[in-house]
Parts: sequence; C-alpha cells; structure tokens
Amino acid sequence: MIKIVAKNYVKPECVQAFKDTAKELIEKSRAEEGNIFYTLNVSVNDPNTLVFIENWKDQAAIESHNKSEHFTGIVPKLGQLCAREGEVELFVEI
Amino acid sequence: MIKIVAKNYVKPECVQAFKDTAKELIEKSRAEEGNIFYTLNVSVNDPNTLVFIENWKDQAAIESHNKSEHFTGIVPKLGQLCAREGEVELFVEI
Repeated sequence: MIKIVAKNYVKPECVQAFKDTAKELIEKSRAEEGNIFYTLNVSVNDPNTLVFIENWKDQAAIESHNKSEHFTGIVPKLGQLCAREGEVELFVEI
Repeated sequence: MIKIVAKNYVKPECVQAFKDTAKELIEKSRAEEGNIFYTLNVSVNDPNTLVFIENWKDQAAIESHNKSEHFTGIVPKLGQLCAREGEVELFVEI
C-alpha cells in the first residue's frame, strides 16, 4: 500500500472554496478501484493548510488516479486557490 | 478523527532495529479502543525516513495513547535510533 500526504497552502479567503471544489475529487477518487482511503484534513497548527491523506493499493492505482478526468480537471482548480506551491510525499507501508 | 504523521530520521545502520522495536508499539496501539489505524511507512525518497501515519477517534484517544506504557516505554527507544529529532504533525479530518 502507498500513502500520499499532499499539503496545500490555501489562500485564507479561499479555504471554503477549496473544500467545496475538493468534494467531487474526494468522492470520485474514493470510487476508484485501487483506492483504500482518500481524506481531506486541516492542520491543527494552521487553518489554511489543507492536506489530502490518501492510501492506494499500489503504484498502478496511483498512476490511474493521476490520469483520471477528476484529477486532471480538479487539481489545477485547487492550485489556483493556493498561496504557494504545496508538497506531495509518498510513503510505502512496511 | 485526528491523523498523526510522525517522521523519524533513522540512522542508516539502525533501520532494521527501528522496525523491530516499533512492532510492539504498532500492535499495542492498534489494540487501543480509540485507534482507527496505526501504520509504519517508509518514504519513497529516503529509506531512512520512517513515518508513522495514524488515525485516532478524537483528542482523548491520543492523550490516552500518549500516556500508555507502550508509548512511554518504546518511543524513547526509537528516538535513540534516530540521527536527529523528527517531526510530528496533527490533522483533523474535514
């Protein structure tokens, strides 16, 4: 299993819009065959840091997700709501 | 639900010892009433970065975990296997 922790540094005035825009991405990603969980979270230290914490069956599942219409269509919209570039980290479960 | 992402920068020669020492912590943490999942993961970018990714029912569950014998007994042992101080981040699921 491969987990993704994807941090988004959202413009303070865009936090609600980010949550609203992410809803479809969350629902459609959860419906993918290779998805185990897909969650949106807020940092306890910063209400403008919104973090996707995801779990995928394998690398093929992530590649399929990255090519999906909901990913390629919605992720750029989320990026426009951010103050600066985020960080994406991948971890393999031991 | 509250997720914890706890990064450990392990000494290269201590990675196996870290995994072995963490086993009891993982088993006993998973058995706690307030735990949803508790996993150990390795960064795809660095084999010496071992990361606990955890999910807890609420803040009370985390406080109970932090006071548990397995936490207070094993976490300092894990710290001795690290090259430098790690990072712990908490996220509340939206």
